[in-house]
Order: sequence, then structure tokens, then C-alpha cells
Amino acid sequence: LKIIEDKRAPNPRRVRIFAAEKGLEPVYEQIDIMRNDHNSAAFLAMNPFAGVPIMKLDDDTVISETVAICRYMEAIQPEPALLGRDARDQAIVEMWNRRMELCFLFPVAQVFRHSHPAMREREVPQVPAWAEANRPRVAAVLKHINDALAAQPFIAGPDFTIADITALVAADFMRLARLERPEDLGHFARWYEEVSARPSAAA
Amino acid sequence: LKIIEDKRAPNPRRVRIFAAEKGLEPVYEQIDIMRNDHNSAAFLAMNPFAGVPIMKLDDDTVISETVAICRYMEAIQPEPALLGRDARDQAIVEMWNRRMELCFLFPVAQVFRHSHPAMREREVPQVPAWAEANRPRVAAVLKHINDALAAQPFIAGPDFTIADITALVAADFMRLARLERPEDLGHFARWYEEVSARPSAAA
Repeated sequence: LKIIEDKRAPNPRRVRIFAAEKGLEPVYEQIDIMRNDHNSAAFLAMNPFAGVPIMKLDDDTVISETVAICRYMEAIQPEPALLGRDARDQAIVEMWNRRMELCFLFPVAQVFRHSHPAMREREVPQVPAWAEANRPRVAAVLKHINDALAAQPFIAGPDFTIADITALVAADFMRLARLERPEDLGHFARWYEEVSARPSAAA
Repeated sequence: LKIIEDKRAPNPRRVRIFAAEKGLEPVYEQIDIMRNDHNSAAFLAMNPFAGVPIMKLDDDTVISETVAICRYMEAIQPEPALLGRDARDQAIVEMWNRRMELCFLFPVAQVFRHSHPAMREREVPQVPAWAEANRPRVAAVLKHINDALAAQPFIAGPDFTIADITALVAADFMRLARLERPEDLGHFARWYEEVSARPSAAA
């Protein structure tokens, strides 16, 4: 497996953590998205939607989209299961991972893209009011996560899953987006410390 | 299976089409999201994230998130496969479905939510500049889809999949968002006619 990525971006980190938890060792090749490499003709020929990371299979098939890459890894290396085991578990993990994407990682990314000076020439047009609209959403989802973690060790239940990876990456991305975590979220803090201490978090 | 939904909204339609393609007949129960039923205490107890549709299993487990519901249906009724068959296919379908969600359905929904008068009191704050920022994204993805459909019958390849369902729902949602489809997209038009003619499209 070959992964083409920019190590600094959040979605590539999700894939690296996922691969590390699986014990997979893809070959990683770096491009520089701040230099706009992902909009080069060579990259767009592989992924017309321009996102990183992408995965290249031995038959040269290119897979883009973080979770599509993770799903392939789950299929070729089922253990440890990070996408759930039976039908019910898989649905619960998918539900929580999507909540973490749509209600946590996504609004954090919108705050970053639409308020950070470094993004002024990359996110065109930058819409500051849209960044502002997303701040309370991040605060709201942190409370929901904290409530869920009062009853279970990990985001989606008893086991570490892809939902924890998405949430960890979103939580760390908050710093870059200059978002502060409220201090009264004890369960969230307990969880954050645990998942950050896993070797995969440094992948 | 029981599905709680509002028939008029796009995500419930995705699940209904998916179930119809599978020949599944869940019990559908309607709530009225324009009356804010999805923010009632009773609904939030089932889904704190407030989205429709949700699915209730026989053991009372509640699954929210459209694709999580579809994934459960795929597991209990594998034929016809709508999420791909082997590892490679599943990754390709997941890639295309996510492209259709993130680059098509999502920007259409943003135009609707942030520009339609009916949403003024529901999407707070409405950010008109964010609606505008999404219009060119819709135009761009339509071209990408048209290019892909020049080489293959369906969005993700030779077979009808969940990616076609997401794209069909997004295409029809464009009307409500008052977005017009350019007339020079012949492959898109061919595909749209075909998938709209399937019985499931009326589900």
C-alpha cells in the first residue's frame, strides 16, 4: 500500500493512526498542500476532488476519502476491529464516527478555514460569519461527547474505534483553529488523555 | 425495523430508496421537522444530535445517521449489494458516496439552508455569503460527475450503489435550493433519467 499525503493535515493523520492501530505499514509519500501540490495536474489525475490522503493499490487503483481508505485497511487486516464486528456494532460505530465527522471535525475545520489568517488565500472566499456560526456547534458537540463518555470508555462504546480516531484528530485540530476546550468536561478530559497516550496517536 | 423520519427531508429519502432497492419494508413513522419535533425531549432522548431519520431495532437500540442505517440494512439483506462486494469495491463505493455527500449533497444543503426564506428561523444564523460560496462548488461537482459518467454507467462504476442514491437525492434537492443544472451535462442527464426511472426513486 502506498499513501500520498501531507502529514500536517488532519485527514492524513486519521489514516496514519488507523494504520498504526492495525499494525499496517504503508509507504507514505509527502506532498505540500500549502504549496498547492494537491491541485497539480499530476495529483488531480489521481484525485479530481483534490483531497489528501489518497491510497494507491498494487493494481494502481486510487482510493481517496479518509474513511474509504480505512475501510480497505479494515478489510485486508480485520484485527483489531475498528469499524465494529456484527451488523449492530458496525451501525453504532458508523453512527458515532459520522457524528464525530459532521458535528465535530467538520465545524472545527470550518472555524479554521474561515477565520485563520493562513487560510485567507486558500479558502476563497473566507466567510468570517460562517466561522462564527460554527463556534457554538463545537461547544455543543463537546458536551454531547462528554455525556456519552460518562457511560462508556470510548466514543462508540466499550472498544476503541475509528470514532475515537476522528474525535482525537478533531480535538487536536481545535488548537490550530484557536478553539479552547471548556474545563468542566471531565469525562472528555479522561478520554482525551487515554487516547492521546496510545502509541498510534504519535503516528 | 422501524424508521422515524420526516418524508420531505433529503436524508430520509436516501434511506427509503436504499430500503426499496433491498426489498426491505421497515415501518415508517413520521415526525414534523418544520414543527421542530426533532428537538422535542422525546426525540432528543433517542438521538441527542437531533437528525432524521433514525432507526429503531427490535432490542430498542437507536441508530441515527443515514449511512449507518443503510449499512445495517446491507448487513441484514446483502442483495443487491449497494455498498460494494470485495475490499476494493467497497472502498471505491465508499469513496464515491463520500464525494457525493461532501461535495454535492452538502453544498446543495448549505445553499438551501443559508439562502431560502423558509429556513430563516431554522438555520440561525443564516449566512448568505456562505450560501453564495457553495454555489460554484455545486457547479464544479456536477462537471466532475459528468466526466465520471462518460466512462461508466453509474457514479461508482458498473453497478447501481449508494453513491447513486446520494447523488439522485442531491440532484433533486437542487430544485428546493433554487439551483439550476447546466444544460451541457449530457452524461449527467442520461444518468439522472435512468436512476429517476427506477421504482425506488418514488419510495
